[in-house]
Amino acid sequence: MEARMTGRDGGAPLEPLGNTPVVILIRPQMAENIGTTARAMANGGLFHLRIVSPRDGWPQERAWRAASGADRILEAATVHDSVDDAIADLHHVYATCPRPRHIIKTVMTARGGAAELRAATRRGLKVGLMFGPERAGLDNEDMARADALIRYPLNPAFMSLNLAQAVMIMAYEWWMSEDSTPPRTLMTNETHVATKGELENFMSHLVRELDDCGFLRNAQKKPGMVRNLRHFFTRGEVTEQELRTLHGVVRELAHPRGKDGLPDAG
Amino acid sequence: MEARMTGRDGGAPLEPLGNTPVVILIRPQMAENIGTTARAMANGGLFHLRIVSPRDGWPQERAWRAASGADRILEAATVHDSVDDAIADLHHVYATCPRPRHIIKTVMTARGGAAELRAATRRGLKVGLMFGPERAGLDNEDMARADALIRYPLNPAFMSLNLAQAVMIMAYEWWMSEDSTPPRTLMTNETHVATKGELENFMSHLVRELDDCGFLRNAQKKPGMVRNLRHFFTRGEVTEQELRTLHGVVRELAHPRGKDGLPDAG
Repeated sequence: MEARMTGRDGGAPLEPLGNTPVVILIRPQMAENIGTTARAMANGGLFHLRIVSPRDGWPQERAWRAASGADRILEAATVHDSVDDAIADLHHVYATCPRPRHIIKTVMTARGGAAELRAATRRGLKVGLMFGPERAGLDNEDMARADALIRYPLNPAFMSLNLAQAVMIMAYEWWMSEDSTPPRTLMTNETHVATKGELENFMSHLVRELDDCGFLRNAQKKPGMVRNLRHFFTRGEVTEQELRTLHGVVRELAHPRGKDGLPDAG
Repeated sequence: MEARMTGRDGGAPLEPLGNTPVVILIRPQMAENIGTTARAMANGGLFHLRIVSPRDGWPQERAWRAASGADRILEAATVHDSVDDAIADLHHVYATCPRPRHIIKTVMTARGGAAELRAATRRGLKVGLMFGPERAGLDNEDMARADALIRYPLNPAFMSLNLAQAVMIMAYEWWMSEDSTPPRTLMTNETHVATKGELENFMSHLVRELDDCGFLRNAQKKPGMVRNLRHFFTRGEVTEQELRTLHGVVRELAHPRGKDGLPDAG
């Protein structure tokens, strides 16, 4: 395999995170796109970049400028004369292709492809993702070498996708294929989600002050009004710290001290 | 609401696809990023763009040049003096934020956020997605106006994300939240996946020729060898057209006609 290390220094301390898919750029035209590809790869935890016949040669200063610190990926990238050379040591190769035509081939979504790539790497297989040149995309010979095509579900009225955007979606789906972040969570920092007891304590304080000020004077309506307030305060999670603030809000509204911090004379 | 139509012509025939989230760029710095944002929005079927206090004013020719034909989105974009003005008519607003700190807020993944946005639009609510300026991101006042923050699960060692890449991920997840493309399918074009009968027909042809040429001369090993071939030919889907080609391959290998199309004299 003909390969060339580009050897420079700088950027974020990136390194391979286990057995990750190789990104193979086939005949890329713009050096900037190689740089932004490296950046997108870094975002998704990919590291291995192979470049087949870059139009303007390699290395290119413009790639480094566009990589926003993903230099290590560019430094470790290898250059190849042919697709066959670039994929010879890989077990599975997927080709991204927006508009496959007149071919008989397995087609996968980005998410489905990422799941298969993840499963294959867990089996210890080396896998790759091929991306075609900016204008023309992969040609028929390139696609015939792929185990499957990956076609992103996107707006059919506007499929024009920048090369780095295409890499970003696969890099993101690769990262997501093993991510376990809960879809929704409350970031509480130094406080905690209030217990029902802490909430009840506040409700008692609030109702007591509302009784005192006369807001609940209608005895018949009072239970419903309190229940409605309870509905409001249980709609989303509330933290212990927020309850303390709300205690203060109720106390100060009921017993105003005025702007000078003294009991209000008005 | 102060709003200004930018009024130009050209590009892809984009239009709003139902009730879709509004993308709100807060104090964006680079006009190119507004253009590439429009392109990413178009990819994911988004249309409504609002721009709060763009650093270099609006409209900007560079935005159109970077939009790759998503002109309609830029033409329909509105400009606003404040975040409050840009979100006043919306029911839910989510803020993308890579590194939220010291705040008590609901945090969602891009996928979880997209699912909630989809559910809200189905209820007829108007929803928005806020993106901060390139360098600083959203400030604390911006985030306090959001119902929840969206934080992409991505490589924590490299979170630097271009503005349009950030928009792309949300636009992609928005599109995926209602996409039903099967994760894996065989694109067959004019042919069809072979029936078991068609496959058996080919297997009979193959075994007959292998019998004739002596490949299966060992009667004891024959059943196992045939079974192994059958395993190979049933590993993936095969089409009727491919079986016809394979029939031809077997026929020509067994009874070669030579390069001139006549029966081989050798």
